[in-house]
Amino acid sequence: MPRSRKKRSVKAGLPPGTLVHIGEARALQVGVHAIRYDAERSGEQAVERIEALAPPPAGVLWLDVTGLHDAALLERLGQAFGLHPLLMEDVLNTEQRPKLEDYGDCLFIVLKRLHPGSNEAGVASEQVSLVLGRGFVISFRESESPLFDPVRQRLLGARGRLRAQGADYLAHALIDTVVDGYFEVLERFGEEIERLEDCLLECPTPQAVQSLHRMKRELIFLRKSVWPLREVIGGLERSDSALLGPGVGLYLRDVYDHGIHVIDTLESYRDMLSGMLDVYLSSLSHRMNEIMKLLTIIATIFIPLTFIAGVYGMNFRYMPELDWRWGYFASLGGMLAVALGLVAYFRRRRWF
Amino acid sequence: MPRSRKKRSVKAGLPPGTLVHIGEARALQVGVHAIRYDAERSGEQAVERIEALAPPPAGVLWLDVTGLHDAALLERLGQAFGLHPLLMEDVLNTEQRPKLEDYGDCLFIVLKRLHPGSNEAGVASEQVSLVLGRGFVISFRESESPLFDPVRQRLLGARGRLRAQGADYLAHALIDTVVDGYFEVLERFGEEIERLEDCLLECPTPQAVQSLHRMKRELIFLRKSVWPLREVIGGLERSDSALLGPGVGLYLRDVYDHGIHVIDTLESYRDMLSGMLDVYLSSLSHRMNEIMKLLTIIATIFIPLTFIAGVYGMNFRYMPELDWRWGYFASLGGMLAVALGLVAYFRRRRWF
Amino acid sequence: MPRSRKKRSVKAGLPPGTLVHIGEARALQVGVHAIRYDAERSGEQAVERIEALAPPPAGVLWLDVTGLHDAALLERLGQAFGLHPLLMEDVLNTEQRPKLEDYGDCLFIVLKRLHPGSNEAGVASEQVSLVLGRGFVISFRESESPLFDPVRQRLLGARGRLRAQGADYLAHALIDTVVDGYFEVLERFGEEIERLEDCLLECPTPQAVQSLHRMKRELIFLRKSVWPLREVIGGLERSDSALLGPGVGLYLRDVYDHGIHVIDTLESYRDMLSGMLDVYLSSLSHRMNEIMKLLTIIATIFIPLTFIAGVYGMNFRYMPELDWRWGYFASLGGMLAVALGLVAYFRRRRWF
Amino acid sequence: MPRSRKKRSVKAGLPPGTLVHIGEARALQVGVHAIRYDAERSGEQAVERIEALAPPPAGVLWLDVTGLHDAALLERLGQAFGLHPLLMEDVLNTEQRPKLEDYGDCLFIVLKRLHPGSNEAGVASEQVSLVLGRGFVISFRESESPLFDPVRQRLLGARGRLRAQGADYLAHALIDTVVDGYFEVLERFGEEIERLEDCLLECPTPQAVQSLHRMKRELIFLRKSVWPLREVIGGLERSDSALLGPGVGLYLRDVYDHGIHVIDTLESYRDMLSGMLDVYLSSLSHRMNEIMKLLTIIATIFIPLTFIAGVYGMNFRYMPELDWRWGYFASLGGMLAVALGLVAYFRRRRWF
Amino acid sequence: MPRSRKKRSVKAGLPPGTLVHIGEARALQVGVHAIRYDAERSGEQAVERIEALAPPPAGVLWLDVTGLHDAALLERLGQAFGLHPLLMEDVLNTEQRPKLEDYGDCLFIVLKRLHPGSNEAGVASEQVSLVLGRGFVISFRESESPLFDPVRQRLLGARGRLRAQGADYLAHALIDTVVDGYFEVLERFGEEIERLEDCLLECPTPQAVQSLHRMKRELIFLRKSVWPLREVIGGLERSDSALLGPGVGLYLRDVYDHGIHVIDTLESYRDMLSGMLDVYLSSLSHRMNEIMKLLTIIATIFIPLTFIAGVYGMNFRYMPELDWRWGYFASLGGMLAVALGLVAYFRRRRWF
Repeated sequence: MPRSRKKRSVKAGLPPGTLVHIGEARALQVGVHAIRYDAERSGEQAVERIEALAPPPAGVLWLDVTGLHDAALLERLGQAFGLHPLLMEDVLNTEQRPKLEDYGDCLFIVLKRLHPGSNEAGVASEQVSLVLGRGFVISFRESESPLFDPVRQRLLGARGRLRAQGADYLAHALIDTVVDGYFEVLERFGEEIERLEDCLLECPTPQAVQSLHRMKRELIFLRKSVWPLREVIGGLERSDSALLGPGVGLYLRDVYDHGIHVIDTLESYRDMLSGMLDVYLSSLSHRMNEIMKLLTIIATIFIPLTFIAGVYGMNFRYMPELDWRWGYFASLGGMLAVALGLVAYFRRRRWF
Repeated sequence: MPRSRKKRSVKAGLPPGTLVHIGEARALQVGVHAIRYDAERSGEQAVERIEALAPPPAGVLWLDVTGLHDAALLERLGQAFGLHPLLMEDVLNTEQRPKLEDYGDCLFIVLKRLHPGSNEAGVASEQVSLVLGRGFVISFRESESPLFDPVRQRLLGARGRLRAQGADYLAHALIDTVVDGYFEVLERFGEEIERLEDCLLECPTPQAVQSLHRMKRELIFLRKSVWPLREVIGGLERSDSALLGPGVGLYLRDVYDHGIHVIDTLESYRDMLSGMLDVYLSSLSHRMNEIMKLLTIIATIFIPLTFIAGVYGMNFRYMPELDWRWGYFASLGGMLAVALGLVAYFRRRRWF
Repeated sequence: MPRSRKKRSVKAGLPPGTLVHIGEARALQVGVHAIRYDAERSGEQAVERIEALAPPPAGVLWLDVTGLHDAALLERLGQAFGLHPLLMEDVLNTEQRPKLEDYGDCLFIVLKRLHPGSNEAGVASEQVSLVLGRGFVISFRESESPLFDPVRQRLLGARGRLRAQGADYLAHALIDTVVDGYFEVLERFGEEIERLEDCLLECPTPQAVQSLHRMKRELIFLRKSVWPLREVIGGLERSDSALLGPGVGLYLRDVYDHGIHVIDTLESYRDMLSGMLDVYLSSLSHRMNEIMKLLTIIATIFIPLTFIAGVYGMNFRYMPELDWRWGYFASLGGMLAVALGLVAYFRRRRWF
Repeated sequence: MPRSRKKRSVKAGLPPGTLVHIGEARALQVGVHAIRYDAERSGEQAVERIEALAPPPAGVLWLDVTGLHDAALLERLGQAFGLHPLLMEDVLNTEQRPKLEDYGDCLFIVLKRLHPGSNEAGVASEQVSLVLGRGFVISFRESESPLFDPVRQRLLGARGRLRAQGADYLAHALIDTVVDGYFEVLERFGEEIERLEDCLLECPTPQAVQSLHRMKRELIFLRKSVWPLREVIGGLERSDSALLGPGVGLYLRDVYDHGIHVIDTLESYRDMLSGMLDVYLSSLSHRMNEIMKLLTIIATIFIPLTFIAGVYGMNFRYMPELDWRWGYFASLGGMLAVALGLVAYFRRRRWF
Repeated sequence: MPRSRKKRSVKAGLPPGTLVHIGEARALQVGVHAIRYDAERSGEQAVERIEALAPPPAGVLWLDVTGLHDAALLERLGQAFGLHPLLMEDVLNTEQRPKLEDYGDCLFIVLKRLHPGSNEAGVASEQVSLVLGRGFVISFRESESPLFDPVRQRLLGARGRLRAQGADYLAHALIDTVVDGYFEVLERFGEEIERLEDCLLECPTPQAVQSLHRMKRELIFLRKSVWPLREVIGGLERSDSALLGPGVGLYLRDVYDHGIHVIDTLESYRDMLSGMLDVYLSSLSHRMNEIMKLLTIIATIFIPLTFIAGVYGMNFRYMPELDWRWGYFASLGGMLAVALGLVAYFRRRRWF
C-alpha cells in the first residue's frame, strides 16, 4: 500500500484549478504519443510542439501522455484542447478515486490500473485518466508501460473494427484494456490467498497471521480502486452524452459485466480472508488444549508418586513399613497401582 | 471450489467479441440436438450442417448445444442465427455470473446449474446459457447431462401444455428445470451442515473446523451462483421484450418465487455456519477450563504434602520430631488434614 | 426446526402447476367447513360435494379447508372456484415463504402461523393460505386447530362489525388472527431468552451454550417466517385491487403495525442472543484466570520450599549446617521467610 | 428493561378496535386537564363531564390526559371528539412503537418519552400519544409528571409566540418537549458508559462485563424507542395534511434535526459499547499471559534444582561425590549456575 | 473526544429560537471582520456598530465572525441581516451535525472544521457555520484562527478568479478551505495508525490496546463530523436555489469529490483498525502457546526424573539396587535415557 497520502495536504489553501502534481514522478520525461486514424489511414505522429496540437477536423486523434510531473507542459496541453482547469487538476492529482465527469464538451474518466507489483501480495496501482472529446481521446498515465500496446497495434496494424469506429469506441477499448488487467492481478491475489490458507492450516505461525493482515490491507486498497468502477462504467453506459454513439453501448455493457465480475471476486476474497483468522485462532486454541492435556497427564500421574517416594524418604525413627522385608517392592507396587489407576481414568475421559 | 479462475486473463489484450473458450472441455465432442415442434407435431432432428440451421418460419426450434470447446463451430452457429459476437463470447466464457441481456432481437440468459458433485460438500457447477429468439431457443451447456431430459420428454411425448405454447414458455421450462435442480443440492448441503453441527457439539476436532471452513467457502461459491438469480428472473418478469408473451409472466413469477426460496435457504445456511465456530470455540474453552481445574486440584493438594515429606526427609542432626514415638503417624495425620482441608476448599468453590 | 426440507426436490422435472403435497399430513382427513353470511343472516353449512361449491351470488362465503394431503380433492376445489393451477400448487407446497400474489380475479396470500410447539424454544409453524375472491374467502391450513374459532364465533354469534362487512374484511380478520398469534410465541421465546441469560451469568455450562445455539437457529427460522410479513401486508395495504374496499385499508394498516412490532421484537431478540455468547466466553476466560492464579500461587510458594527441604535432604558427608544445633529450626525459619515474602509479593500485585 | 411484554397476547382473538389497556396503571386516577387559549386569552378549565367536551368553535383546546387504565372513560372521550376506535386502541396499548398516522380529520402521533429512571443505566420510558385535530390537541400520557409544565406555563403566562399560533404549533411544542427530554437521558447514559469504560480498563471484573451487557440491552431498548422518530417527525414535516399550517414546517425541521442528533449519539454509544468487550477480553488475555509467565519462570528454575537435590539425596551405597570434601558446596554451586543460566535465558527472551 | 455533550440539556423547556450558546467560549471577545469587494475593488472594513451592517446593494460583503459566546451581539447581527431565529439558534449551538438548510432568502450551512489538536490522535473540532444570502456571506467560527486567511489574501491581493465572482463562489471557497483542512488531519491520523500497527506487531502491550481503543473512539467522532458532508455538499450541488449561480456547480462537484475522498479514507482507516485487535489477540494467543510449551517441556522432562531420584531416596531397609556397585551410575543412566526419550518425543512433535 503506497504511503504517498502525505502529499495531498500541500494543496490546502490553493485556489481550485491550480495544477500541482500529487504523487511520485514515475517517468523520466513526460512523453506524448499521437496517433491519427480514420477508416482508411492510420499513423503515428511525432509531437513537436504541444501548442500545435488541436482536435482534428476529421478522423480520430489519440494522444497518449505518459508521466505527469511536468505541470507546465500539461497545462499547455489542456489549453490546446480547451480542457477545464479543474479537469487538469484532477489529472495531476494521482489520488483520485475512479470517477466519471461530464464537462459537456468532453467526458472525463479516471481509472486505477492495477498491475503485478513488487510487494508481497503482488499489486501496484497507477492512475489512468481519459478525456473523450469530439474526435479525440487523451489518455494520461503516470508511467511509461506497455499497457496500451495491444490497442496501438490494433490501430496501426490491419484494419480491424477499431479503426472503423469513432473516438467513443477507442475510449471503450482503453477502458476495456484497463479492466482486463484486473484479472491477472486478481488471479495472483487468489493464488496468494490459497497458499496462505494451506499454510495457516498446516503450520499456523504468527508470520502467517501478519501475511493475512497485510493481505487484508491490500484488499482494502483494491476495493477502493475497484468499487467505484461499477458507478463509472454504469454511468457511461447510461450517459446521454452526444459523445457516445449508439453502437458503443453494447460494448460498454460488456465492460460493465467484467467490472461486476471483478467486484464479485474481490468480495469473495474478502469473505475468504475474514474466515481465515478464525481458523488460525481455533487451531491455536486446539494446540493449547493438547499441550495442557499432556502437561496435566504427566503432572497428575507423577506428582502423587513423588509424594509417596517422599513419604518413605522421611527420616522418622519409627516407620514400621521401612523394616518390612518386602516394603520396598510393596511401595513400588503401590505406585504402579496409582499410576495405572490414573491412566485408566484418563482413558475413560478419552484424553488419549 | 473450482480453481479454474486462472484462465480468465488469457483474454487480456484481445478485442471484444473474440471467441475463446474459457473453462475446461467437459464433453468429448460438441453435440447439437434440434427439436422442432408446434401444437400439432414435434420431432427430433439430426443436425448435419451448422450452416443449414436457421430460425424456423413457423413453430418452435430448440437447439440444445452440449460442449463449448469448439469455438469455430459455435461461431458458425452464432452467425447462422445472427447472434452478436459479444453474446457468443459470453457463451464461451464459462466464468460469467448469471445475467440477463436484451439484444433487441433476442434475450440472452446466463445461469449456473448446480448439481451434486464429487467434493465433500457435494456441489458442482456448470454454466447454462439460453438464447430466446423469435421462434427459437438455443441452450448452451458445458457437458452432456440428463439435465433437460424431462423437458425433451414433455415435448416429444403426449401433447402437454408445453407443445401448445411458444418459445418463451420453452425458455421458462428450461430455467425452471435449472432452478429446480438447486433444491437437491441445497438439501444435501443442509444435511451436511446438520451432520457437521452434531459432530462439532460431540467431538470437536480440528478436522471438523476445517470441514466448516470448506463449507463456508462452498457457500461463498454458491452465493455467487445463486444471488444474481433474483435479478435475472425478476428482470425477465418485468421485461417488456416482445419475445415474452403475456401468458408466461405468471410462470416466471413462479420461478422467481423458487429463486427467492433458494436464496432464503442459503442465507439461513450462512447464519447457521457462522454460529457454529463460536460453539466450537466455546466448547474448546470449556474443555480447557476442565483440564486446568484437574491439574490445579492435583497440584494444589500434593505439592504441600510433598513439601511436608521433604521437610522430614532432611538430614539435620537435631530434629526433635524424628525421635518421637508417633512422629511418623502424626506427620501422616497432618498430611491427611491438609489434603482434606484443600478438598473441602475445592468443594466449597464447587470445583468438583 | 423442522427437517422436512427434504421433500422439496421430489418436484424436480415436473411441469409447473402439478399438484403435489409437500410436507407431512398433519390432519387425518381433509375437512372443508363452509360459512355463508351477509348482514342479515349467517349459517354454517355442510359441504357434501366439492363440485357443488361455487362463489355465491350475494353475501360472503368462507371455506375453511383443514388438511392438505388430498391433492385430488383440492384440485377439484380449485377448479370449482376457477383458481389457477400455480396457485393451487403453492397451497399444497407447505414450504412457501409468506407472499402476496394478485391473480386479477383473486388475491392469494401465504402466511406462516406460529404456535407454541413441543420443542425447547416452544415454536412450531404451520402454513396458512388465503384466497380472497369476489364474495368468497378460502383459507387452507395444514391441520385442524382452534386458530380461526374466534372469527367463526364472531360470524355466527351476535351481529358484529364483521358480518356487516364484505369478504375483504373477513380476509383481514383472518390475517389479524394469524399475526396476533405471533405475540404469544414471541412472549414465550422472550421468557426463554431471559431464563437462558440468567443461567449463563450464574452457572455457565456448555449445555447453556447449546441451548443458546438452538435458540439462534430457532430465531433464524422465525425470521424466515416473519420478515416477509412486512412486504405481504404492506403490499395488501398499497394494493389497488378492486377486491379490497376503501374501508379495509385502515384495518390493514393496523395489522401492518402489529407485523412491524413483531419484526422489531425479533430483531431485539437477535441482538440479545448475539451478545450472550460473549458474556459466556468472557466469564469462562475470567474463571480460567482465577484457576490459573490459584495454581500459580500454590506452586510458586511451595516449589522453592520443597527445593530447600531437598537440599538438606542430600547425603553429602560434609554439610556443616546439618550439624548445627539450631540448623533444623533455622531452615524452617528460612522457609517461612521465603513463604511470607512470596505472599507479600502476591498481595502487592493484588492476586488475592 | 420492562418485562411487561407479557400482556400483549391478551388481545389475541378480540376484534380490532376493542379498547383494552395494555401496560401497568401508573397513575392513581385518570386526570383530564383542559386549557383553552387564543391570541387574546388563555385559561385552565375544570373538566366535569367528559361528554360535554368537544372541539372548540374558535381558539385552541388542549386536553392533557394522564393515566390510561380507565378504558371506559377514554372511550367516551374518544367518542366526544369523534376519534376512530383503532386510534383509541393504540392510545391504550402502551407497547406501540413511535408512529404517525393520518386519519384525515386528525393526525395521530405516538412517541416514547424517556426519563431518568431508577435502574442502573438510568432510563425509563413512557408512551405519549398526541391527537392533532382541527382546533384541538389531545395528549395522552401514562402517568402524571411535570413533563408538559413548561408548555403550560408558556401558554398561561405572558403572551409568547405559542399563544399566537394554532393547534399545529402546540403539537410541535409538545413533540419538541418530548425530544428535548432525550438529551438528559442520553447524557446520563454517556456518563455511565465513560464510567464503565474507565472501570474496564482499570480493574476488569466480571461485574463490569455484566454491567456492559445490561447497558447493551438498555441500548437495544433505547434504539427501539428512538429510531422510529426519524420516520415520524420526517413524515410530519413532509405531510400535506391541512391540519399543518405553512409556518410550522421550519419548526418541525428543527425538531427533526434534534431527533437525528439523538439517533447519531445513540449510534456512537453503540459503537463504543461494542468495542469495550474486546478491550476487556484482551486485557484478560494479557493478564493470563502474565500469570503463566510467572508460573513458568518459577517452575522452570526450581524444578531442575529440586531434581539435583533429589539426586544427591539418593541412598546408593557407592556415590563418589558424597564423600568429596567440597561436594556439598560444589553441588550448591552447580545449582546456582543452573539457576543463573535460566535467568539469563528468560532475560534474553525479555520475560522480565 | 470532547466531553461537552453535557450542556445540551440546559435548553430543555425553552421555546425554539431562544439563543443560548452551547459549548465553551474559545475566543476572548467576539470578533467581526468585514470585507467588501467587487471585480474592481476590495477592502477590509472596521465594524463599529453591528446595527449599521446590512446586505450591500452591490458587490459582495463577507462578514467573518469569530467567537460565539455573546448571544446578545449575535442576535442583533441576525436581526440586521434578517436571519431566522432558528438559524441563529443553530449557529450558537456548537453541537450541530453538519447540515444544509434552505431558508428561501438564504442558505445555511453547518460544517465541522477539523484541525490538529493536542490529544493523542491529534484531532480537534470546531463548528463553522456559513450563511449565504443575496450579496453577502457570513461565516461564524468558535475561535479566532488563521483558517480563512488564504481566502482573505486572495480577496485582498491581486485580482484573482475569486474577486470576479459572486457570493456563491466565496461560499464555495470557504467550504473548500474547510474540507481541504481534513486532509492534514487524516494524514496525521493515518500515520498514527501505522505507528500503532507496527507497535502491535512488535511488542503487543495493553497500552497499545488502549491506544487502539482511543483511536477507534476518535474515529467514531470523526465519522460523525465527516459523514454528513456527502449530504451537505451533494445537496448544495443539486440545489435549485437562486442564490447559486450556474458557474459554481462545477466547483461544488469538485469539493464533493474531495469530501467523498475523505469519507473513503475514513472507511479504510476503520477497516484497518478493526483488524488490528485480532492481530494483537492472535499474537497474544501465540505467545501463550509458546510459554505453555516451555513449561510443559521442562515439567514433563524433570518430573519423572525427580520421581526416580525420590524412589532411591527412600529409606527402606531392603532395597537391592542401593547395594549394587554401579547402582548410582545405572540410575543416572536411566534418568538420562528417560530425558533423551522425552526430548526425542518433543522433537518428533516439533515442539522445538
